[in-house]
This record gives sequence, structure tokens and C-alpha cells, in this order.
Amino acid sequence: MRLLDQTISGIGTLDANAMQQARERLDTLLKPRGSLGKLEEIAVQLAGITGNLFPDISKKTIIVMIADNGVFEEGVASYPQKITAIGAGCLIKGMMGVNVLARHAGAGLKIVDIGIREDVHAEGLIVRKIRPGTANIALEAAMTREEAVRAIETGIETAFQAIDEGADIIGTGEMGIANTTTSSAVLYALTGKDIDALVGRGAGLDDEGLMKKKNAILRAVKRNNPDPADPVDVISKVGGLDIAGLTGVFLACASRRRPVLIDGFISSAAALAAIRLKPEAKSFMIPSHCSMEPGAGIFFDVTGLEPMLRMNMRLGEGTGCALAFHIVEAAVKIIREMGTFGDIGM
Amino acid sequence: MRLLDQTISGIGTLDANAMQQARERLDTLLKPRGSLGKLEEIAVQLAGITGNLFPDISKKTIIVMIADNGVFEEGVASYPQKITAIGAGCLIKGMMGVNVLARHAGAGLKIVDIGIREDVHAEGLIVRKIRPGTANIALEAAMTREEAVRAIETGIETAFQAIDEGADIIGTGEMGIANTTTSSAVLYALTGKDIDALVGRGAGLDDEGLMKKKNAILRAVKRNNPDPADPVDVISKVGGLDIAGLTGVFLACASRRRPVLIDGFISSAAALAAIRLKPEAKSFMIPSHCSMEPGAGIFFDVTGLEPMLRMNMRLGEGTGCALAFHIVEAAVKIIREMGTFGDIGM
Repeated sequence: MRLLDQTISGIGTLDANAMQQARERLDTLLKPRGSLGKLEEIAVQLAGITGNLFPDISKKTIIVMIADNGVFEEGVASYPQKITAIGAGCLIKGMMGVNVLARHAGAGLKIVDIGIREDVHAEGLIVRKIRPGTANIALEAAMTREEAVRAIETGIETAFQAIDEGADIIGTGEMGIANTTTSSAVLYALTGKDIDALVGRGAGLDDEGLMKKKNAILRAVKRNNPDPADPVDVISKVGGLDIAGLTGVFLACASRRRPVLIDGFISSAAALAAIRLKPEAKSFMIPSHCSMEPGAGIFFDVTGLEPMLRMNMRLGEGTGCALAFHIVEAAVKIIREMGTFGDIGM
Repeated sequence: MRLLDQTISGIGTLDANAMQQARERLDTLLKPRGSLGKLEEIAVQLAGITGNLFPDISKKTIIVMIADNGVFEEGVASYPQKITAIGAGCLIKGMMGVNVLARHAGAGLKIVDIGIREDVHAEGLIVRKIRPGTANIALEAAMTREEAVRAIETGIETAFQAIDEGADIIGTGEMGIANTTTSSAVLYALTGKDIDALVGRGAGLDDEGLMKKKNAILRAVKRNNPDPADPVDVISKVGGLDIAGLTGVFLACASRRRPVLIDGFISSAAALAAIRLKPEAKSFMIPSHCSMEPGAGIFFDVTGLEPMLRMNMRLGEGTGCALAFHIVEAAVKIIREMGTFGDIGM
């Protein structure tokens, strides 16, 4: 059996017994029941994921998948294509937003070239290039099905490696010019929701660019006819290598029972693909922020998940995950460190 | 001139020049303009408050004002009144939610008895009791105008002391059985908004308790007839000593140009009183989370402020501020540490 199938079939359900124990413990703490809201929900979820009421989540890793997208040719991006490769170099140098926020959170980064068009030579960059960028989805499939599977498996292997190196919790990030276009296309193909609600200005498109972007997505879906019941088909036809890689990260974390944070819009497209491949994978995901990209709301509506942070951010890279680690750690400390009514004899 | 009047007249405006410099710096960073949303807005605001593009906000203090409320007699609370005094002791012992989250954030606490009904003897508790709880606002004024002014000035003095001890940024917290009732009454008196939208279940009222609570607030406002144009009148007639103290904290931080975080519902009633006393005070405030208490939304509507965190929390104590410190510090690191397009020769 292939790694992808193995991983999917290795995904189980949350530990209901540990979750019940967590709920009972939370109800003994010195506060009105439920008054810490999502902090309590996260504590319960982490118990269900790890089987431990007081899990150690101190080792935090963000996996950043970087790839180019052939649909750039359609004029859907507000930056030149070479910015993907330049950005990868800047990530390695620690100059980007996610570098700053990951340092602030005490998190490490794994930066993966899963399909940058150019060859980037930078020490520390993990080169797992499936192909040098995808084809233009407005004209043809982004990649072959085999390439999509290999890209997902690359994400699985990267996450497994992070976990083998000790990661207790994983964040998802990406970089790649035109990847809000491919993410909108994946969400459009998977959900069938209104295209106008799904497509936004990405890094800063003008009205003409926005029209080109919607047009390219509509043409991509019409031309390639992806099967909404087959997420690998959707990713291979209208997706991107970064989305594929992150889909693998979500599946890998679920199969190894590690909490995994959803970042922004691109990450949410990968999360939905993973959920469609294995609905149980959702229980291992923790949403972080709500991207300013309008389609972000569709993901939350469709999955029933709710973001914790409303920061009006739209940078990607894993910046939302980096900010959310502190909150997830807070949840662990609440259940572990707060006093109980019993402690004060009540 | 009294300390209150001195403090109010000492509140200035943000440093427009520093804010412009911050905006220009943010626009040179390696990201699409504005793509870090509220992190960028906070960096600009902090520049305006401190006059410094890279302010040091490492010393963080939460001021927790604790007081009892005579309106407890109306059956508006879901816990016995003695919980205020017991809670104060637990805060001193470090057992409560805000203790855990403040430790997680590296913040210190100043815990102030500004009007607990009982005498609490606990080392570290700052005893500045104006009176042992307020009167029942459904029957009479909560306190005299002179007491309200002294309570506000107690908040001012406490914040000044924290700042003299080095606090770079201050959070606001409170504890006191029945203080969502007084906060709803203050917001109702100050805004004239629909009572049903302003009153919630606090720590967990049932339907009957909720009806009693609304009834008590309506009677309090009818009986005492507070002047919406005079926030001190509103606080003295239908407010509480904790709200008064926090109003002073907000004014003091604005006058000494320190950023101050708004916590949840009770804190927002104090913030609105401070804004009504001096509109410029708002520029020094940073909202943290959106409380589950329904009236919280009214505060945001009226002020135009927007919470960063949606955690479904309703505990108070300063727990929202404690979680938000990490985000405010992230904003400082973004403007200070991110690379620029110039750094890479673009």
C-alpha cells in the first residue's frame, strides 16, 4: 500500500475517555463552568488527540511549503513570479513575517521547496521539488495525478520527520505567487460555492486583476472538470504543489496524533482536501486566524470550525499559526495549573 | 485641582509624526502592504503612544480591581457573595485563570481590594477599600459622588504606581460578584441601547435570574436617573467600585502615555466611562477579546474598536488582556525585526 493510503487508514478518532476526563477536570477549576470558552475546548481536544490531560506541546514546528503556479501567466498575481524564489531565500535568512512570529512563539521552521520554478540554493532549504512549478490550470491540469500523490506524500514525510525530531504540535505555512488563485479553485471545486464569495484580491489585486482571477478559475474548473468527490483529482487538476504538500501535513499529523494548526486561506484549502480524504482528520486540526481573503469564511462555514484570531491578516507563510501557538499553550496551562474548588475546601 | 481633573487634562493625542514614520517603515517590510492587518495597526498605535517606533513593552502589569456590589440582594448573581472575598484570596495565591495566563505571558499582577464587603487579609493584596461594597442600585445610589471620584483616583494612583515601577503596558482586570449587572447598568445609562442586547447571563444565570437582572437594572436607572453626559454620575449611581477603579486606570495610562488593554465586559464599561470623560483616552486603549456577554458587542459598536480574539470567554479577571499581550509584543517585533525590500536590493 502506498504511503498516502497507509497514512489515511492510520487516522483514528479522538480518545473519548481522555476528553471526558479533561471536561471533568475543567469543571473542578476555580471558574464558572465553560467560562474559558475555546481555551477549554482546546484543552479537551488536546486530551482527545494525545490521550493525556496535561500534554507537553513545547516543541512547535511550522512546515512551510513553497511552490510556483503556472496560472501566474493569466495575470492573476500582483507580484512578479520570481518573488517565490526570492521569498524562499528570505525565509531561510529569517527575514520574513513568519520568521519573526515563529521566533516570538519559540517555534522552529521547516522550509520546503516542493515546486519552486527556479532552483534556489540556500543552506537549510529542504529541496523536495516535485516539478518546477505547475502548469497553467486555465489551460491544462496543474500536474499529473501521480505528481499530486507524490506531493501529498512529500508533505506526509516532512511532517513525519518533524514529529520524529520531537515536534509536539505543527503549524502549516506556504509561499507561492498565485497560490490564492489555486486555493480558490480548489475550494470552488470541492464546495461548489459562489465564485464571487470565494475569490479575493490576494496580495493586492486591482479590479481588472480580480476579474482575470475569477475568469481563470472558472476556465480551469470548466476545462479540467475535477471530481469534487476525489480530492486528489481536484488538487492535481486545479491545485498547487504547496496545497498538496500541506494536505499531506494535515493527514500525517492526524495519523500520528499530533495537533496541527490551520493557517490562512491556502492552508484552509489543504485542510479541506485532507478532511474530504478522511473526515476524522478534522478532529486533529485547530484553526488559528480568519484571513481577510473572503473565501476564508466559506471554509469555516463548510467545516463548522471557528477561528480564534481576527487580525485582518492576509500574509500566509504560517503567520496565523505562529500567533496561535501561544493560545494553545495557554489552554494546556489552564487545565494543568489552575486551582480547583477542592483545593480551597469547597 | 483634584487628581482626577489633573489626569484628564494631562491626556494628549497620539504622536502623528511617529505614526507616519511607523507606517512608512511597515511599508518597506518584506510583505504586501497592510497584509499583517491589526499587527500593523498596533505597531502604528504604539508608535503614536510612545513616540518610539520600536518601543520596549516587556514589562507588563495587569491591575485587578475587586469589589462587592449591593445589587447582589436582587438575586442577580449565580454565586454567593462571599465568592468575591474568597476569589481575592485565590488570586493572591496564584490559583485563578488570570494568574495562569499572566504567568504564561510574563506579566505581573496588582490585586486591589477597592471595596470587598469582607476584610480580606492576604499578603500582597493592595487594600484601598473605598467602602465595603456598594449599596443596592435598585434601591439607591451605589455610592456618593465623592466616593466614585475617590475610587477613580484610586485606579489612577494604582496605575501611576505600576508605571513608576516600570510597567510599559497595562492590562485591566476585575472580580466581584454581580459586576456584570453594574456593568450592564453603566453601559445602559451611557449608551441608551436596548436593555435586552446589553444584559447577559454573567457567570451562568438561569432565565429567572436573567429577568431579575434586567428588572434590577431598569429599576436602578429609573430610581437614580443618572446623567449620561456625566460618567462620574453614572458610575456613582448605577456602577461599582471596580468599574470606577478601572476607569481611573484607563485615564492614568492615557495621561502617562502607556498602552492599556481592555479586557472583557466589565472592563469595557470602565473603558467607555473613561472615553466619555476624555475622548482622546480611546487612542491609548487596545481591545483584547470579545466577551461572550452579549453587551460586549455594543461597546465595540459604540466605540468602533474591534477585538482581536474571539475565544468565547466570559471569565473576566483580566484573562483576555493576559492572552493579548503576546499579540501586542508580536506587533513590536514585526516592525523591529522583519527584513525590508531594501535589505535585498529591491
